[in-house]
Amino acid sequence: MAAKLSEAVVRRLPVYYRHVCELKKEGVECISSQELSDRLGYTASQIRQDISAMGATGVQGSGYSIDLLRAHLETLMGLDSFHTMIIVGAGNLGRAVAHSVSFRNLGFETIGIFDNNPDKLGWDIGNLTVRPASQMEAFVRDNPVDIAVLTVPRECTQEIVDRLVACGVRAFWNFAPLDVKVPKGTSLVNMHLDEGLEVLSYRMRHNNP
Amino acid sequence: MAAKLSEAVVRRLPVYYRHVCELKKEGVECISSQELSDRLGYTASQIRQDISAMGATGVQGSGYSIDLLRAHLETLMGLDSFHTMIIVGAGNLGRAVAHSVSFRNLGFETIGIFDNNPDKLGWDIGNLTVRPASQMEAFVRDNPVDIAVLTVPRECTQEIVDRLVACGVRAFWNFAPLDVKVPKGTSLVNMHLDEGLEVLSYRMRHNNP
Repeated sequence: MAAKLSEAVVRRLPVYYRHVCELKKEGVECISSQELSDRLGYTASQIRQDISAMGATGVQGSGYSIDLLRAHLETLMGLDSFHTMIIVGAGNLGRAVAHSVSFRNLGFETIGIFDNNPDKLGWDIGNLTVRPASQMEAFVRDNPVDIAVLTVPRECTQEIVDRLVACGVRAFWNFAPLDVKVPKGTSLVNMHLDEGLEVLSYRMRHNNP
Repeated sequence: MAAKLSEAVVRRLPVYYRHVCELKKEGVECISSQELSDRLGYTASQIRQDISAMGATGVQGSGYSIDLLRAHLETLMGLDSFHTMIIVGAGNLGRAVAHSVSFRNLGFETIGIFDNNPDKLGWDIGNLTVRPASQMEAFVRDNPVDIAVLTVPRECTQEIVDRLVACGVRAFWNFAPLDVKVPKGTSLVNMHLDEGLEVLSYRMRHNNP
């Protein structure tokens, strides 16, 4: 296994993975760092450095095997395992995550959806029924929950995290516009959609691509 | 106006902006780079460099004025202007964007929603009615559209972009899991939700926070 990767390299892993999966579909078997560079927009030297940091190797003259690179990325990113998720917040965003075919194809399966709003309780979302948030803890005790996806309003997000941490959830994917706090040993990704729109606004003002 | 910012600094602008807005709400008037460092987790030296690159200045001894920093960030990121958006794809994600109060509070207003699915046509989403995608071009001709938000399936995303570029849309916020191609002078942010989940999966495997 490679040494600990820098945050910048970790952020690029999904980009490599997406392109490697596309290349596989296109029937490509091997690719050079220069061809990857043309496709991804990183320099060839950056790409060689990144792939070497991931602990993968190419073959002099023929480049990187797409199959080996894909298998390597899947192991490195934990995508060779199946993950279960619960979603807290059955609004539009929560439903979008629950219905996502691409998350399911990556091995992330939603097994429970919770909400506090009495109007939403009992709704069917795919093959799941929205349960009251008061039943979260009991559900986590009785089912193997790897990840909690948070699509609740900002004000109640930290409280939900604290409750789930207390009953053993160790990974959070947070869509609320705040940096939630989690204890050491807990994994967290904040997905601040606002930030995407703000970066777009910056680019529009400065006419950047 | 500051010189062209690096992509890394541009990505951090929304983080500064979010914290500066929170500090304002908390009643803070001035803040030092060290206090910002404790809050944001970047080093104080990084923060001084970033803020200087943005073209903002502090006062020796008292630090940065929150009001000035906020106003500066808003101008830099174009958040002092109002932006109109259309959403193409009236699924859960499209509806989540249309209903987002935080986007509206940032000055981004959805003025049209389009979909190809006959079942969705005529649906009311907030005060808007879902229109057929065939009417996109006419709508863009008759209304000032700053941004197109793409929440359509991967397969049809590039075609929608090409049609909107052809009728003058110059900024795209893409949620489909592909890097769409836009001509020079067009602004684009790809929001690949899968990548967030993949980074989380990496952190879980390596027990990173």
